[in-house]
Amino acid sequence: MTNVLVINAGSSSLKYQLIDVDTETVIAKGLCERIGIANSVLNYKSNKGDKLEKQVDMRTHEDAIAMVLEVLVDKDIGVISDMSSIRAVGHRVLHGGEKYSASVVINDKVLEAIEECIPLGPLHNPANLMGIRGCMAVMPDVPMVAVFDTAWGQSMAKKAFLYALPYEAYEKYGVRRYGFHGTSHRYVTGKCLELMNSKTARVITCHLGNGSSVSCSEAGKCVDTSMGLTPLEGLPMGTRCGVIDPAIIPYLMSRTGMNAKEMDTYMNKKSGMLGISGVSSDYRDLWKAADEGNERAKLALDMFALAVKKYIGSYAAEMNGVDAIVFTAGVGENDRGVRELVLEGLEYLGVKVDFEYNKNCPRGEEVELSTPNSKVKVFVIPTDEEMAIARDTAELAL
Amino acid sequence: MTNVLVINAGSSSLKYQLIDVDTETVIAKGLCERIGIANSVLNYKSNKGDKLEKQVDMRTHEDAIAMVLEVLVDKDIGVISDMSSIRAVGHRVLHGGEKYSASVVINDKVLEAIEECIPLGPLHNPANLMGIRGCMAVMPDVPMVAVFDTAWGQSMAKKAFLYALPYEAYEKYGVRRYGFHGTSHRYVTGKCLELMNSKTARVITCHLGNGSSVSCSEAGKCVDTSMGLTPLEGLPMGTRCGVIDPAIIPYLMSRTGMNAKEMDTYMNKKSGMLGISGVSSDYRDLWKAADEGNERAKLALDMFALAVKKYIGSYAAEMNGVDAIVFTAGVGENDRGVRELVLEGLEYLGVKVDFEYNKNCPRGEEVELSTPNSKVKVFVIPTDEEMAIARDTAELAL
Repeated sequence: MTNVLVINAGSSSLKYQLIDVDTETVIAKGLCERIGIANSVLNYKSNKGDKLEKQVDMRTHEDAIAMVLEVLVDKDIGVISDMSSIRAVGHRVLHGGEKYSASVVINDKVLEAIEECIPLGPLHNPANLMGIRGCMAVMPDVPMVAVFDTAWGQSMAKKAFLYALPYEAYEKYGVRRYGFHGTSHRYVTGKCLELMNSKTARVITCHLGNGSSVSCSEAGKCVDTSMGLTPLEGLPMGTRCGVIDPAIIPYLMSRTGMNAKEMDTYMNKKSGMLGISGVSSDYRDLWKAADEGNERAKLALDMFALAVKKYIGSYAAEMNGVDAIVFTAGVGENDRGVRELVLEGLEYLGVKVDFEYNKNCPRGEEVELSTPNSKVKVFVIPTDEEMAIARDTAELAL
Repeated sequence: MTNVLVINAGSSSLKYQLIDVDTETVIAKGLCERIGIANSVLNYKSNKGDKLEKQVDMRTHEDAIAMVLEVLVDKDIGVISDMSSIRAVGHRVLHGGEKYSASVVINDKVLEAIEECIPLGPLHNPANLMGIRGCMAVMPDVPMVAVFDTAWGQSMAKKAFLYALPYEAYEKYGVRRYGFHGTSHRYVTGKCLELMNSKTARVITCHLGNGSSVSCSEAGKCVDTSMGLTPLEGLPMGTRCGVIDPAIIPYLMSRTGMNAKEMDTYMNKKSGMLGISGVSSDYRDLWKAADEGNERAKLALDMFALAVKKYIGSYAAEMNGVDAIVFTAGVGENDRGVRELVLEGLEYLGVKVDFEYNKNCPRGEEVELSTPNSKVKVFVIPTDEEMAIARDTAELAL
């Protein structure tokens, strides 16, 4: 048993999983919420079936990690006898800028680099740092690894990652396409190449959830990806607008009187599936409403599927074809209706789908939706970012 | 001989062509510049070879049109004996909003509608109205037709024209994809269908010039188009950025201190080919610089071609394939290097191009670049918006 603790720290939350990397088993996992806010809560669940939900004062991320360790070693419901059995910690970090194209063992220089990227990830990077520093305080002798959400996008060619803005926007202010969901795209791409027994295939991965992105790769190296400088670009999402005419921003600001901050909220929190449908940002709610005759709910789903389809098409053009299309994340793994809307009418690419099986295939496992004679393989592959982080951590730190 | 005058009025300029619609011949054409500004100038060229460049006071568009008529009937260099031989006037109008999906004979209601669309076309619609009203004052009894640049886009499905913003942005403020260059996309699509002897083909038209857009159609009806609420969206252009992560706007405003108006200028006038290359917005200059080893000039061209290629791919996905790809406008008709960059690596679509012929094909006429066994036809078709306007005008007013 080789235990790695995986940490995903938000500004007031901390998700954790304790993973045995030898067997790739999740031993325990949970969530600390409302860190630094009144009534903070720790959630915990072990693979033995024990559960805990506990109101406990957590003023800092350091407090939260101390609490997590306390419950992990608890005599009754804990899963390890001693803190020393945690051999390494892997931290999800949003933004590594152009410095990191792969995961890295954390030292002072890495902490500095994550700090330097705060302007690019103003909400996440400070939270990620609090998680790392909290961990270091409580477990000073355990090696830690940073796994960057932006690392995947670092293999893009310049013509793919640059925006057609004045070049100084890139040189002075770091404005370029970085892409996000990188750990997920990398994980499912790896699984897909395994399933195809190929090292070189051209794969398009559709990570569709509350936040969504499409990415494409050749031989496991990212060629392009739909999120950009920030996670707002690309597909319409639960509450995010995705790509729009940039001139809409000044136009709507002047028509409505919104200021820049309000416009930002408008595009990030009030748009997307919620904004179009007026119903919900949750795809299950949208299908329910659509089935009951709500036209705007159906419109939102149609717009989403068309946007995914257009990205698939543009990436096929960029790679001169495609060998496999993968669906993953909450919507990609579970929403058969969305998958059908995306996949119908792609015969021109050589995609042949068993739409009956798409309706009835099992959940939570890898399934192939394409027919045996399909030129392009179509898979559903459950993503597992925590496992990817644990693997990287074990590889680099143990 | 049935003469139609075609007018394209800008805020301080007025382009005109006198076209005999029976033979589809341009009899005379020219340009008035600096209208309402000191040192205004009229240019004129007849198909008999006469030329005139004349400094003449033009305070209003009405003055300009009076001057145009004066030279058209001039005893020495004129082409018609009498103003009455102009049977109708066709006006290019930028924005018809959702009211006009085709050209229309101008009456008070139409003038009102063009006025109502001023918020959507704040620079062009007022100028177009000045051109129409100036013409009406000088030629009160001649029928006039408005040909809208946005009419082509009106056949798009809602899922294609809507942005994933709160629905009220569409209902209250008219925020949707309208598309531009419509008259050109329609004209070359019509020519392409003629060349293919098809009424139903799926055609992707690449209007590439200083402003650029890609559009796709089935059976001559627009399915999608790359420009949006404004002509800023879509491809990177001479000085325009095209689509970017919308969050770049607030990010750059806060990093650089630019205000909304400066940001607008930045995206519309300082970006695109000029912004990336730092050299020029003119593609001939870019190739020259690239040939001399300027990497950013080559990068700009590569980015442009990749963007066109990705639109072709996304539209092929939207239509489940494509039967023809058409290049038109200044760059599309003349820049062989750009065409080669766009067309190489589209074999997955069934595109086979005679790249040798692409280098040596004649200019200024319709040519087919695809090989006889290519599944997808590839054409260069010179655009002629004025002829399209003259045809519509004759059809509706004569």
